[in-house]
Amino acid sequence: MGRRGLAIGIDIGGTKVAAGVVDEEGRILSEARRSTPGTDPRAVERVIVELVEELGSGRRIRSVGIGAAGWMDLDGGTVLFSPHLAWRNEPLRANLQQLLRRPVLLANDADAAAWAEWRFGAGQGESRLVCITLGTGIGGAMVMDGRVERGRFGVAGEFGHQVIMPGGHRCECGNRGCWEQYASGNALGREARILASSNSPMAQDLLAAVGGRAETITGAIVTELALAGDTASRELIEEVGEWLGLGLANLAAALDPGLFVIGGGLCSAGDLLVEPARKAFARNLTGRGFRPAAGIQLAHLGPNAGLIGAADLSRVSSRVRS
Amino acid sequence: MGRRGLAIGIDIGGTKVAAGVVDEEGRILSEARRSTPGTDPRAVERVIVELVEELGSGRRIRSVGIGAAGWMDLDGGTVLFSPHLAWRNEPLRANLQQLLRRPVLLANDADAAAWAEWRFGAGQGESRLVCITLGTGIGGAMVMDGRVERGRFGVAGEFGHQVIMPGGHRCECGNRGCWEQYASGNALGREARILASSNSPMAQDLLAAVGGRAETITGAIVTELALAGDTASRELIEEVGEWLGLGLANLAAALDPGLFVIGGGLCSAGDLLVEPARKAFARNLTGRGFRPAAGIQLAHLGPNAGLIGAADLSRVSSRVRS
Repeated sequence: MGRRGLAIGIDIGGTKVAAGVVDEEGRILSEARRSTPGTDPRAVERVIVELVEELGSGRRIRSVGIGAAGWMDLDGGTVLFSPHLAWRNEPLRANLQQLLRRPVLLANDADAAAWAEWRFGAGQGESRLVCITLGTGIGGAMVMDGRVERGRFGVAGEFGHQVIMPGGHRCECGNRGCWEQYASGNALGREARILASSNSPMAQDLLAAVGGRAETITGAIVTELALAGDTASRELIEEVGEWLGLGLANLAAALDPGLFVIGGGLCSAGDLLVEPARKAFARNLTGRGFRPAAGIQLAHLGPNAGLIGAADLSRVSSRVRS
Repeated sequence: MGRRGLAIGIDIGGTKVAAGVVDEEGRILSEARRSTPGTDPRAVERVIVELVEELGSGRRIRSVGIGAAGWMDLDGGTVLFSPHLAWRNEPLRANLQQLLRRPVLLANDADAAAWAEWRFGAGQGESRLVCITLGTGIGGAMVMDGRVERGRFGVAGEFGHQVIMPGGHRCECGNRGCWEQYASGNALGREARILASSNSPMAQDLLAAVGGRAETITGAIVTELALAGDTASRELIEEVGEWLGLGLANLAAALDPGLFVIGGGLCSAGDLLVEPARKAFARNLTGRGFRPAAGIQLAHLGPNAGLIGAADLSRVSSRVRS
């Protein structure tokens, strides 16, 4: 596969499947969406086929890239594990190549988003890029020397599951104290619900904004309220930003990237999140003052990064380190 | 520089300078040692010149590799920072090449040791190797696709300074809660001194072994006592091993190596250290059961890994990623 021609990228999330035709410059020429049809692999395959037929009609599509939360084998052919879908050791690519009659690549969604930011977004030209996608959890990926670094078995980049607080909050991965329990949309929502359920006067505006129903608060709601000026919400985001910065300092100690790019839904908080992160990073980086330090930038491509990256990776898959 | 010929490796520690002539198979043909002459860069240079003249006499030495704790620039020419020596932005290589009339490479000591283990020791053939050197602190390094991965600015691999316990023990780096405050020789010594200073009946044998002087206990002493069967010392090492395993699980989440090689002085504890580490690793690895997992092995080359690696790196320096 060369770099030329159009590719379709498909981003399979827990609730929706987004697809787009992506050109060589990372532009989306047309888009389509479906609800994620439950967790049955066959049903997901049917939706993928539908989307490719719809978008590919009248166009020459060279390849199809599929991004999803989860672990793909190094070869990009088999889903080892996907948290939101019932895929376990699923040879998705073989099935799909037969159905689509085109080369298909499976990619971890965070890897795909990082690739897109490196090729077309905030990470262009960086030889050691670390991308963090802050959504319900933390997605992580590295692009090193122009290749996605996926580790020995294809499952590198799970930065969100580094234990940063032994004995801390229980994580969906089963462990305790994972970074994503402190620096993610879910963490923000949880802390806001706890605050709103308390009798703190700090919580009154927050609670009023959700009609007194503390249990309905999500990270997205807190972000909205913070952007509208709510003090408690701003403090909650600041706290998440501080945890983010501490974790980035840990990653910088280990990986020494030139740049961190921060994407994902939580980034709509902008500087309310990133400024506290930068401060905490600067305060926690080991050897500060005696070393150059990575920058921290917001992602450029927004929620389409995953499908753009999946499409582009399918075009240049020979460049993915394996 | 090719791979052929003899090279001299020099390992500059806080107390001693060890040097050796190393052949293409990683064998040490002859060795020499000096005390580290304080912290004056000129005095250290003189010792290096002396050692090279002594060891090189009557031999054709192609290059000289120098390993030291600290950060070298990506080019391997300048010491950015070294904790035990007074080097700050010291253009050590230029000075030494003039004095030695041979190519000189500067390497971080942990990078050098990891390279040696990959080339000649426990890490041979591994495409994603992470080495941990447990001494007074934690040294870390990665060999990826046959190259030392040094990051964007040359300072990657500082795994020991990942914060694993926010607000925890103060670290020599200035931060709190760094991994090396929990999983190192210094951590072992500190915990043993605290235990021995208490009135715990557990501490009696330990205290008796040091003539009642709790303040003289070091990690090395605890290791010796543990190997001789002292229960409290064994428990202390087990604790350190558990912290080691937790940190390795964090590194596996991020880097997904094929193998961890554990070297450094603390490794003389052998299975007393590594078995608890393996257990804690297995218990803390995210996604366990749905992913292949890295092995954990003791290093093969012992305390000479640093000088062997520095010598070999000086021979093949074009293969160091930059």
